[in-house]
Amino acid sequence: MEELFAKRIKRMENGELAEIMSLVGRDDIISFAGGIPADEIFPFEKLSRLIEQLLREKGASVFQYASTGGNKLLKDYIIAFLKERNIPAQRKNILITTGSQQALDLLSKIFIDPGDKVFVEKPGYVGGIGATQSYEAELIGIEMDKNGIKIDILEQELKRLTDKGDRAKFIYLVPDFSNPSGARLSLERRKRVLELARNYDFYIIEDTPYSELYYYNEPLPFLKEMEQNYRKQDRRVIFMGSFSKFFIPGMRIGWICADQKLIELLGRAKQNTDLASNNFGQQLISLAGEEGLIDKQLERVKPYYRQKLELMTGAMEQYMPDKVIWNTPQGGFFFWLELPEDIESRELLDMAVKEGVAFVTGNSFFPKFEDGDHYARVSFCNVPEEQIEEGIRKLAEIIQMYENSTGRPC
Amino acid sequence: MEELFAKRIKRMENGELAEIMSLVGRDDIISFAGGIPADEIFPFEKLSRLIEQLLREKGASVFQYASTGGNKLLKDYIIAFLKERNIPAQRKNILITTGSQQALDLLSKIFIDPGDKVFVEKPGYVGGIGATQSYEAELIGIEMDKNGIKIDILEQELKRLTDKGDRAKFIYLVPDFSNPSGARLSLERRKRVLELARNYDFYIIEDTPYSELYYYNEPLPFLKEMEQNYRKQDRRVIFMGSFSKFFIPGMRIGWICADQKLIELLGRAKQNTDLASNNFGQQLISLAGEEGLIDKQLERVKPYYRQKLELMTGAMEQYMPDKVIWNTPQGGFFFWLELPEDIESRELLDMAVKEGVAFVTGNSFFPKFEDGDHYARVSFCNVPEEQIEEGIRKLAEIIQMYENSTGRPC
Repeated sequence: MEELFAKRIKRMENGELAEIMSLVGRDDIISFAGGIPADEIFPFEKLSRLIEQLLREKGASVFQYASTGGNKLLKDYIIAFLKERNIPAQRKNILITTGSQQALDLLSKIFIDPGDKVFVEKPGYVGGIGATQSYEAELIGIEMDKNGIKIDILEQELKRLTDKGDRAKFIYLVPDFSNPSGARLSLERRKRVLELARNYDFYIIEDTPYSELYYYNEPLPFLKEMEQNYRKQDRRVIFMGSFSKFFIPGMRIGWICADQKLIELLGRAKQNTDLASNNFGQQLISLAGEEGLIDKQLERVKPYYRQKLELMTGAMEQYMPDKVIWNTPQGGFFFWLELPEDIESRELLDMAVKEGVAFVTGNSFFPKFEDGDHYARVSFCNVPEEQIEEGIRKLAEIIQMYENSTGRPC
Repeated sequence: MEELFAKRIKRMENGELAEIMSLVGRDDIISFAGGIPADEIFPFEKLSRLIEQLLREKGASVFQYASTGGNKLLKDYIIAFLKERNIPAQRKNILITTGSQQALDLLSKIFIDPGDKVFVEKPGYVGGIGATQSYEAELIGIEMDKNGIKIDILEQELKRLTDKGDRAKFIYLVPDFSNPSGARLSLERRKRVLELARNYDFYIIEDTPYSELYYYNEPLPFLKEMEQNYRKQDRRVIFMGSFSKFFIPGMRIGWICADQKLIELLGRAKQNTDLASNNFGQQLISLAGEEGLIDKQLERVKPYYRQKLELMTGAMEQYMPDKVIWNTPQGGFFFWLELPEDIESRELLDMAVKEGVAFVTGNSFFPKFEDGDHYARVSFCNVPEEQIEEGIRKLAEIIQMYENSTGRPC
């Protein structure tokens, strides 16, 4: 019956990540694989009390369908949250989504016809690659350094497309502490990408899951804030937000902030995609926001993850062979390692798992799978503090062993 | 910037339903529009206690991401639920979805290339039409009577496609008390559609939201049960289940039961669509299932909705003009009215709303919008008992008035 499947399923055949993720739960493994927040920092007691309050105040209605666009009070909280970040919005500019992944799916759904060009970070978020490829986009990866995408390369690609009479629909960016690179887009590059979007007429999807998780310096302004200086018709930023990384992910609540016409269209797409996001989760997060719990939690999680980041930084510097290259991130969840060229990350992972350590191979983060052969994503977010040094030491030893076995000094 | 939108958005431009639904919340209107279960019958106190138990037993993990495929204990409950209904399944045959609407989206995603033929009931569920059209399927509506789709017409269409060297990907069926028609597919027709699927090699998507809501006779066997008599390679039924109509909808939890290969593919599609369904809702429903609350609730809701159905039946028989045609449903939530040809249901709705009554115009339930001009869906599920007679009496009067104004006897 395979002849009955849609063409797009060929773009969905990477099962490797699911396989790696299945390692995460094993007790005998120190896992740097999971890019998920740590349960132990969730404000469990306070959430439990808020749930009691919610049930008392709202009654059975919390178990009813929500509207497709989303709970109005949750929208109001998001509007206040955005206002503090210098992003003006009204209810008509907000769509509640079933996590940020759904935002990516809906945006892909309304923008992408097969063969359409889309820019992504290279390396970039696996779910962004997956969502856009599911709609048969043709992805153009833009190389990154520690300051985010290289704008000159983006501009070259734009010129190349224009010369061919083609264009791109959007660029998908995680400007702050991106997954997997940990890179932050510099202020100068933020300005330039806004200019390019205006000049070449494409949308910027600004995804911000880690933006609140800055552990040192002040945050840079969001692209969505910066474009307020443009005339309305020149604005191109679609903002995606999520509560998953700094609050709780299990409720699957994210949002899109964009102009009204886009929000209406995305709402129709959502109607046909899952009708509405879960009402209980929306109401709980709305209440947590109103009661100040989300702000308080932000102040709790930053020193918590910073501590883990510093433990990992220390271990990396102490143990990792010189040939392994990385930039220490200033926020977010991830170290991104460039391995020596003679190390295949898939082979390294197999060796590491035997020794009780796991990470994610680089492949899934590239539009072309094989481009990731010599990279590894190592997350510090969800591994217990006391395992970080031991895990990195082991991983470093395995890299050293691998290098030795290939007969070259490392 | 509209030139940047995907072609498929042209299939998403029906905002009428959203507009009608916005009437549902108004206090001054007796609304027969909402096809949603009634809050007042939700087992609120018991759910509140189960939530306490869940938090006590599972701790912070209920707020963590779930796996993409779904919670294992919830799958086990669904497997037991299906077993009681003579449908054998294992965990590998189950995918948890964000409500049944997501099941329709994911199935459309893996099956439909633009222009692919898909059969739907005519009239049929608006979300089925919407999901498949979002992927640019070409819908072929199969006429219904009170015994469900007319199989002879389906067979003619299959022959017509075959003669053209074409085929259909699947048929989307709601065999029990369909939305909006209330029709139930007869046993004889169930047999025949299974035969046709085998002979012409297309899938049957069997959506069962109302299947448990039979108020009189025993249920008919599911297609998924009946196909167990076929050899494995001849089985074509993909089963969709939902807790939304007989338990609670707000958690957005549904499921697909199908062969392992399909479930794996749907899981990959889900990974890129919303990563996972909300964990809290999955765990709550799983616990409610284990504790017997779902079975108990089924015994509560059936007499509750039957009472409403009978009140509406009485009022329809007493007040509705003879020219209005309907079949009294034996389960589910809906009356489907065929109006006299000179009554446009959109105009009727405008008149009705002015008089304080709402329903859903027929249009949204047809692949071709205009085919629904003379139909109305009148739901009894979510209107207070004491309003049913008054609302139907008013609606009947308005129909009578409309007819009189067109100058013909009604």
